[in-house]
Amino acid sequence: DGSSVESLDYEVIENYAYREEQAIKPEGTGLAAVLINISVENFAGWKYSLTFSIIQKSYVAGFIVYVLINLALVFSSVYIITQFAPAAAGSGIPEIKGYLNGIDTHGILFFRTLIGKIFGSIGSVGGGLALGKEGPLVHIGACIASLLGQGGSRKYHLSSRWLQVFKSDRDRRDLVTCGCAAGVAAAFRAPVGGVLFALEEVTSWWRSQLMWRVFFTSAIVAVVVRTAMGWCKNGNCGHFGSGGFIIWDISGLEYELSLNPVYGSSFFIVCWPSNQSSFSGQEDYSFRELFPMAVIGVIGGLLGALFNQLTLFITRWRRNYLHRKGNRVKIIEVCLISVITSVISFGLPLFRNCSPCPESDASSGIECPNAPGVYGNYVNFYCGRDKEYNDLATIFFNTQDDAIRNLFSAKTIHEFSAKSLLTFLVMFYTLAVVTFGTAVPAGQFVPGIMIGSTYGRLVGMFVVNFYQKLNIEEGTYALLGAASFLGGSMRMTVSLCVIMVEITNNLKLLPLIMLVLLISKAVGDAFNEGLYEEQARLRGIPLLESRPKYQMRKMTAKEACGTQKVIYFPRTIKVADIVSILRSNSHNGFPVIDHSRSGETLVIGLVLRIHLLVLLQSKADFQHSPLPSDLRGRSLPIRHSLSEFVKPASSKGISIEDIHLSSDDLEMYIDLAPFVNPSPYVVPEDMSLTKVYNLFRQLGLRHVLVVPRASRVIGMITRKDLLMED
Amino acid sequence: DGSSVESLDYEVIENYAYREEQAIKPEGTGLAAVLINISVENFAGWKYSLTFSIIQKSYVAGFIVYVLINLALVFSSVYIITQFAPAAAGSGIPEIKGYLNGIDTHGILFFRTLIGKIFGSIGSVGGGLALGKEGPLVHIGACIASLLGQGGSRKYHLSSRWLQVFKSDRDRRDLVTCGCAAGVAAAFRAPVGGVLFALEEVTSWWRSQLMWRVFFTSAIVAVVVRTAMGWCKNGNCGHFGSGGFIIWDISGLEYELSLNPVYGSSFFIVCWPSNQSSFSGQEDYSFRELFPMAVIGVIGGLLGALFNQLTLFITRWRRNYLHRKGNRVKIIEVCLISVITSVISFGLPLFRNCSPCPESDASSGIECPNAPGVYGNYVNFYCGRDKEYNDLATIFFNTQDDAIRNLFSAKTIHEFSAKSLLTFLVMFYTLAVVTFGTAVPAGQFVPGIMIGSTYGRLVGMFVVNFYQKLNIEEGTYALLGAASFLGGSMRMTVSLCVIMVEITNNLKLLPLIMLVLLISKAVGDAFNEGLYEEQARLRGIPLLESRPKYQMRKMTAKEACGTQKVIYFPRTIKVADIVSILRSNSHNGFPVIDHSRSGETLVIGLVLRIHLLVLLQSKADFQHSPLPSDLRGRSLPIRHSLSEFVKPASSKGISIEDIHLSSDDLEMYIDLAPFVNPSPYVVPEDMSLTKVYNLFRQLGLRHVLVVPRASRVIGMITRKDLLMED
Ligand SMILES: Nc1ncnc2c1ncn2[C@@H]1O[C@H](COP(=O)(O)OP(=O)(O)OP(=O)(O)O)[C@@H](O)[C@H]1O
Ligand SMILES: Nc1ncnc2c1ncn2[C@@H]1O[C@H](COP(=O)(O)OP(=O)(O)OP(=O)(O)O)[C@@H](O)[C@H]1O
Ligand SMILES: [Mg+2]
Ligand SMILES: [Mg+2]
Repeated sequence: DGSSVESLDYEVIENYAYREEQAIKPEGTGLAAVLINISVENFAGWKYSLTFSIIQKSYVAGFIVYVLINLALVFSSVYIITQFAPAAAGSGIPEIKGYLNGIDTHGILFFRTLIGKIFGSIGSVGGGLALGKEGPLVHIGACIASLLGQGGSRKYHLSSRWLQVFKSDRDRRDLVTCGCAAGVAAAFRAPVGGVLFALEEVTSWWRSQLMWRVFFTSAIVAVVVRTAMGWCKNGNCGHFGSGGFIIWDISGLEYELSLNPVYGSSFFIVCWPSNQSSFSGQEDYSFRELFPMAVIGVIGGLLGALFNQLTLFITRWRRNYLHRKGNRVKIIEVCLISVITSVISFGLPLFRNCSPCPESDASSGIECPNAPGVYGNYVNFYCGRDKEYNDLATIFFNTQDDAIRNLFSAKTIHEFSAKSLLTFLVMFYTLAVVTFGTAVPAGQFVPGIMIGSTYGRLVGMFVVNFYQKLNIEEGTYALLGAASFLGGSMRMTVSLCVIMVEITNNLKLLPLIMLVLLISKAVGDAFNEGLYEEQARLRGIPLLESRPKYQMRKMTAKEACGTQKVIYFPRTIKVADIVSILRSNSHNGFPVIDHSRSGETLVIGLVLRIHLLVLLQSKADFQHSPLPSDLRGRSLPIRHSLSEFVKPASSKGISIEDIHLSSDDLEMYIDLAPFVNPSPYVVPEDMSLTKVYNLFRQLGLRHVLVVPRASRVIGMITRKDLLMED
Repeated sequence: DGSSVESLDYEVIENYAYREEQAIKPEGTGLAAVLINISVENFAGWKYSLTFSIIQKSYVAGFIVYVLINLALVFSSVYIITQFAPAAAGSGIPEIKGYLNGIDTHGILFFRTLIGKIFGSIGSVGGGLALGKEGPLVHIGACIASLLGQGGSRKYHLSSRWLQVFKSDRDRRDLVTCGCAAGVAAAFRAPVGGVLFALEEVTSWWRSQLMWRVFFTSAIVAVVVRTAMGWCKNGNCGHFGSGGFIIWDISGLEYELSLNPVYGSSFFIVCWPSNQSSFSGQEDYSFRELFPMAVIGVIGGLLGALFNQLTLFITRWRRNYLHRKGNRVKIIEVCLISVITSVISFGLPLFRNCSPCPESDASSGIECPNAPGVYGNYVNFYCGRDKEYNDLATIFFNTQDDAIRNLFSAKTIHEFSAKSLLTFLVMFYTLAVVTFGTAVPAGQFVPGIMIGSTYGRLVGMFVVNFYQKLNIEEGTYALLGAASFLGGSMRMTVSLCVIMVEITNNLKLLPLIMLVLLISKAVGDAFNEGLYEEQARLRGIPLLESRPKYQMRKMTAKEACGTQKVIYFPRTIKVADIVSILRSNSHNGFPVIDHSRSGETLVIGLVLRIHLLVLLQSKADFQHSPLPSDLRGRSLPIRHSLSEFVKPASSKGISIEDIHLSSDDLEMYIDLAPFVNPSPYVVPEDMSLTKVYNLFRQLGLRHVLVVPRASRVIGMITRKDLLMED
């Protein structure tokens, strides 16, 4: 239902009020979103420690407690979302993408959405559902940035004076872009990845100044996150810090070893830094290894496209049948999924036979077995004998971050059996598809990484068995698998590549990741669009792509308007007429037409519905005479400050129904001339729609007026006319 | 002299001929520029080996031979440039930036420029001048991409059919962007850095499809470079491969050691991968180290801004006085600089006392002394005793790549004395400033890295002495210094950051590099613009910034046109009139005005000078009657294929002087209607110049028509009208 969706006004309305006011340029957007991480990470830390400490006592009691805690967490999440902040459900990235494309989804940047998102995602991720919190973090970053720009939320009395400079939709757009980058930077501890994510995936317009601001924001976030991490490592944050929540820090050397495992046996040689050429490690993957990597890319493309398609069907079905029935159904649905997830993740490992621990090697530093819930591989879960571990529990009955770390881990070459991995893959894929689209905050990054690294590791196992060579590491394949699934589902390239590299802290894998991403994106593109585009379309967010559609070439601007009769205002108009026109339709922009002295008509501008509503509400400009004010010899009075016309970001704004006018008021007149945007962009009626599209899309417009061909040319503007010195 | 500069036509000319032809979409631009590296690197390899083998025999003879070889190389370079390809002088990045901003500098993408650039930069870099070859490589990449798009150069009979789909300026723009990315990817072996460089520094318009293509190109280049490197390591490329030309590969572990030098003494502990938190290394720089790093940032900003200012003065002086006098002066100038450079780089180390070698540690793998010209630190140059080395020769009398590697090197903590570093810094800075702007291909990346790493290492030395702590490495400071100087001079952020990280193969330095870059860019911005912008302005390349100037807010479109009288064509016009109008001015676009039946005028479009010239040359459209063709009842004949109107990329194109018409021809008429662009973008006369600027800049236009306000509105176009399904 796209009817609730309205566009944003990125165009600067150069009306009379605007010209009088000194425009304050936004400077230093960098402070936005630095608080995301600390607030979110700390809340989630103690939850895991609580969960796990109870579970370790008895398996039956543990099972019940586990299910109940998960249920409680998930319930709190879905309750917050359904009752308090419905706009906070889902990942939020499609909505933010829409916002930056020029579409205002109701409530997406409200303060309550922010609160709902933070607490909701703590509940849903903590409750063990098959979803992540990276998407929500991006949304949180965008919310914080927007609210900071708004000078705090007025409704909750959190406003500060100096932040109120970011007023127009245009400035807020830049802030939200910075917020997205900050979100990714905080979620993955990947500052450059954040910049690229904002650039490649979410934003629709890009200026090079913005790059600098986004970079600055990301840098600050990176520093804050690092400081917080350092502080937490000293044990100030409870459970957080020992394992690392959200961010799985895979050490660089571990990977260097994984590429050059021959070093693993003779450490002294590794560290001998003399011979550069034998040391670089990059030439270590041989050409025949490129084939399995290409296979991973293809699998990623296929599974990713399938994921998009399945979630599309399920979301559509949910929207049309299930969620119609109200909030109660939504809550029950999520709780059911939570119970199923808990049962599967606890129950399946019970049926799995334990494997004996590998021969312990003092130098490798691997401990086997570990207690469940403790950071590490080789979890002892329902194993009879002493030196045994349960490979399925290692990945299934664990926090997602630990599971990913285990899947990525090198030096644990035969830790997982193919059967366990396959079980996990099928189960988790199904759970992820089913969980997607429920009424909780949900990111797709972490589930994507889980799924991808599982089949990546599977392929890696087959490769190890087939080639019988040890310089192939299963962990590397898991990493490539993760990249391929994300590429196949989200269709990002550069940003994903950089994020993966920053996560793993290993640049040497860059070319391999690039290769895998290229393949998986190409394969995925053959089937459908990217996850976020599909979801945006489904939610009625009409994204304008950067390229016009092919059939637009043959159409003209006039044809695009069809048979519509333009609703316009004369320059001076009775208040009663304004009200009735505004009531009669839902358009947001109206041309204003004046009669010149010689009797011919002239378009003097475009007036926005919200500006008209402000005028009607304030009544300050009502006049008794139907004559334009300047014709009566007076200069235009300034009765409004620019701030009155500013659109509030975190409330719906006034509507025509809210305005109550006396019958005296209705008989008065308004001269609209000072309040119109005097020079909206116009196109001649027979311009091809491709060019109109480019104009509309590139400049981020909301209304374009189609006018007749000009009768004469007053001047030509070329580059030379636009070059000016300061 | 900006008079030779004309704009590019990115707008699609939707004239009659265009509508008839099926547009072929460009797909797969990835193959461009893969050959850059192999061709360039191999040529330069043997030159160094030759140079050095002669020098090692005797110092006096060596000196003479050294000077002469350098002179010969530099002379060959400057001779090629001045005689054969004048457009290949300099780095080429400002010109490419201009090209992508919409300005065609004559000859910048010709085949001969490509050849001149390749051989010229081999000569100038091989000849030991204080310049690099990364800038030229970007230019080379852009040339190759453009020529590939052109289907080879027609003049040199290198054309292929299937490449001729990239015809318009618009397609070529995308290709050139890919070429730039390929150039950086090849020069620094930094594929992601290449993508970001193309995005942040050179391009002015960005679409998300382009990102994918650029990424693809970079990925292919990275693979090709890697393959070539592997091949060369087997000894197939002469001198190249042992030391590594162009790319200095600083191993990852070396840096990890440099951050955790305590590992240096006890290797076994380093490689023990058990304890993650003590291992990550990122927390190793303490907060008090941030202060010297900020100092480096400030120094970088100051020295970078000074560099820009000095080169600006020198270039201006050169242009106004020196280079007026012809090619001979240019050649003499460069040869003089070459001799001075040779004398300084050979002579200064002679005056420097040698230092004794550090105690040799078998495990560290450091050899001391090394013979000059051999890859490695601690060069023995004019040292009396056996176990001595000359620290100035280690950086000065060496290839630039080896010098940089030595400056960056860790574990060589007291290798350089402050005096040597200071001498080198002053000397090299002066040489770099003087060499800049001579008539040879010259990049500023490598000199910038040299300068920056020298003062970075100087600061590092003071820090080591001051803090008396060993977990600060001089090599790390050198790296940060290099980043700071490049940031202070070129003012890039994200791309530079990623390039530095990719060069050093060490992600852990990312936050420090970000910090330093932020400071140095901010400091530099306080003084002047970035190097490339300054140079572009000086060369008369009128770059349009992405932001309109502030005073434009108060101006209208009509005011920008001033008092100009628009030169226009009627729809049907005598050939003689066309010729005389074209002769009388140098405008490139002319409105075409028709009279409707009711007698009023109507702007029917814009005709371009080059299209008129094509019409005049072909004569196929001349007609005897002064009546428009369709009025005489005939449908418009198709006498031209679209390809006739395509602008050639690698030649000047025809001019009005080349066209010879008989007096009969001059009496004929042309109906211009089929050849006009029927819907150029128009703006109403009182639109503010800010909005005109945005329109012009964002859409990459060349001409905007200023027209009177419209008299009525035919339709409104909003987002909903532009949403179409395929
Ligand atoms: N003033 C108007 N007179 C006549 N038709 C209009 C007017 N404004 C918009 N339209 C048409 O009405 C249709 C619906 O547009 P709508 O009214 O939703 O635009 P809007 O609300 O101003 O902009 P948006 O919905 O993008 O925020 C479109 O096809 C548009 O061309
Ligand atoms: N047809 C025209 N009639 C009158 N003035 C024009 C016309 N075309 C351009 N001008 C003006 O002449 C000045 C010089 O522009 P110029 O002729 O160089 O434009 P151009 O060559 O068409 O475009 P460019 O130089 O950007 O390639 C500008 O101020 C411009 O406004
Ligand atoms: Mg609407
Ligand atoms: Mg011109």
